[in-house]
Amino acid sequence: MKALKIPEATVTRLSVYSRFLKQLDKKGVTTVSSGEIAEGVGVSPAQVRKDLAYFGEFGTRGVGYNVKDLIRYTVKILGLTEEWDMVLVGAGNMGSALVTYREFKDRGFNIMAVFDNDLTKIGKTIADLEVMPLDKMPEVVKEKNVRLGMIAVPSKAAQEVADKFAESGIQGILNFAPTTLNVPEGVEVRNVDLSVKLEILTFNLTIKNQSL
Amino acid sequence: MKALKIPEATVTRLSVYSRFLKQLDKKGVTTVSSGEIAEGVGVSPAQVRKDLAYFGEFGTRGVGYNVKDLIRYTVKILGLTEEWDMVLVGAGNMGSALVTYREFKDRGFNIMAVFDNDLTKIGKTIADLEVMPLDKMPEVVKEKNVRLGMIAVPSKAAQEVADKFAESGIQGILNFAPTTLNVPEGVEVRNVDLSVKLEILTFNLTIKNQSL
Repeated sequence: MKALKIPEATVTRLSVYSRFLKQLDKKGVTTVSSGEIAEGVGVSPAQVRKDLAYFGEFGTRGVGYNVKDLIRYTVKILGLTEEWDMVLVGAGNMGSALVTYREFKDRGFNIMAVFDNDLTKIGKTIADLEVMPLDKMPEVVKEKNVRLGMIAVPSKAAQEVADKFAESGIQGILNFAPTTLNVPEGVEVRNVDLSVKLEILTFNLTIKNQSL
Repeated sequence: MKALKIPEATVTRLSVYSRFLKQLDKKGVTTVSSGEIAEGVGVSPAQVRKDLAYFGEFGTRGVGYNVKDLIRYTVKILGLTEEWDMVLVGAGNMGSALVTYREFKDRGFNIMAVFDNDLTKIGKTIADLEVMPLDKMPEVVKEKNVRLGMIAVPSKAAQEVADKFAESGIQGILNFAPTTLNVPEGVEVRNVDLSVKLEILTFNLTIKNQSL
C-alpha cells in the first residue's frame, strides 16, 4: 500500500464525502451520482470522480454509486472500521468542548481519558471522565495501546505534552495549541489552528474590498 | 488587487509565518532567514521563499528578512491591521471554548456578542458576555457593521444560522458544525471539521501499518 501516495486534500474530501454519504443513507437514499455528492459537499463533480478514481472503478455509468458500498469503502480507506481510542491533555474550555463533541463518537473516536496538571482541574469530571494527573498518561497510553492523542493546553505547554506523547507511544497528535510542534519520526501531527481559518476569511474580505 | 490570485495554502502558511514571526519579535530577534522560518514552522525553505515571493522581493540575500517588516507585511496582507469584530451563535461547550480562546484576541479578533436560542442558556454570561436570544443577532450585526460570524451549534441547526447570517450582512462564516453550508454569493464559509483532521491521522496510521 506504500506506493499509493494519496494527496492529503483527497483524504480530507473522502472524509467529507463519507459523512455526507452517511446522511444520505440515514434518509434511505440507496444510489448517488458524483454530481449529487459534489453538490452536497460543495466541490465539482469532476473532483468527486477524480478523488474516487484513486481507488479504482466502482460507480456504474448512468446509475451512479451504491451509497452503502461507498460508505463501507470510504470508512475502510480512512481506517475507521474499528473504534479509535484517544487520550486528551488539557481539561480547560477547549478540552471540555472536545470531550462533548458529538461528531467524534459518530465517527468512531472515543476519548477514553483526560489529563491535566492543574490541581484545580484534577479529580473533576467532564461528561463522566475524571480528569487525571498528566503523570498518569504514559501508563494509560501503554496499557490500553492508545495511538491517538489530542493537545488542548496553552501554547507554551504544548511541546512538553507532545514529547510525553511521543515517548509513551502515541503515533498521531491532533494539536489545538496555536504553535508548531517538533515530534520524532513516526509521529504525525495535525494542527487545528482556529485563527488561521479566520485569517483566510479576513484575507479574502480585505482583497475583495480593495478591488471594489 | 483582484488579479493577484494567491492559493489558499499560501495564505494559510502566511498566517502561520506571521504568528511565528511575532514570537521571534517578542524574543528580541530582528533578522530571520527563510531557513529559520522554515524550521520554525515545519515547511521547506524553498516553500517559504516561494510564498513570500508572491508579494515581491523583500529579503536581503545573505542577511535575511527584517522581522518587524515581515510582521507588518504579513499582518497587512491578511487584513489584520484593524481589529475584527465577530459574533458567535451557539453558547454550548464549543461556543464557550471559542469565547475564551486566547489566540483570537492576540490576532485582533474580538467576539463581541454571543447568541443562542436555548432558553436555558440565554441570559447566562461567558467571560463577561451575556448570551442573547438569536433573534437579536441581525440587529447587532447591522448596527455594529459586523462582517464575521462563527457557528457552533449542532449540525441540524447550522444552515438556519448561516441563512440568518447572510441576511444580516455577515460576509465571512467560520463553521464548527460538521455539515456543509449553502450560502449566497458574496459570503465565504470555512469549516473547522475536527473529525476530518482526525481521519487524516487514522488514514496515515492505517496505511503505515498495512505496509509493514
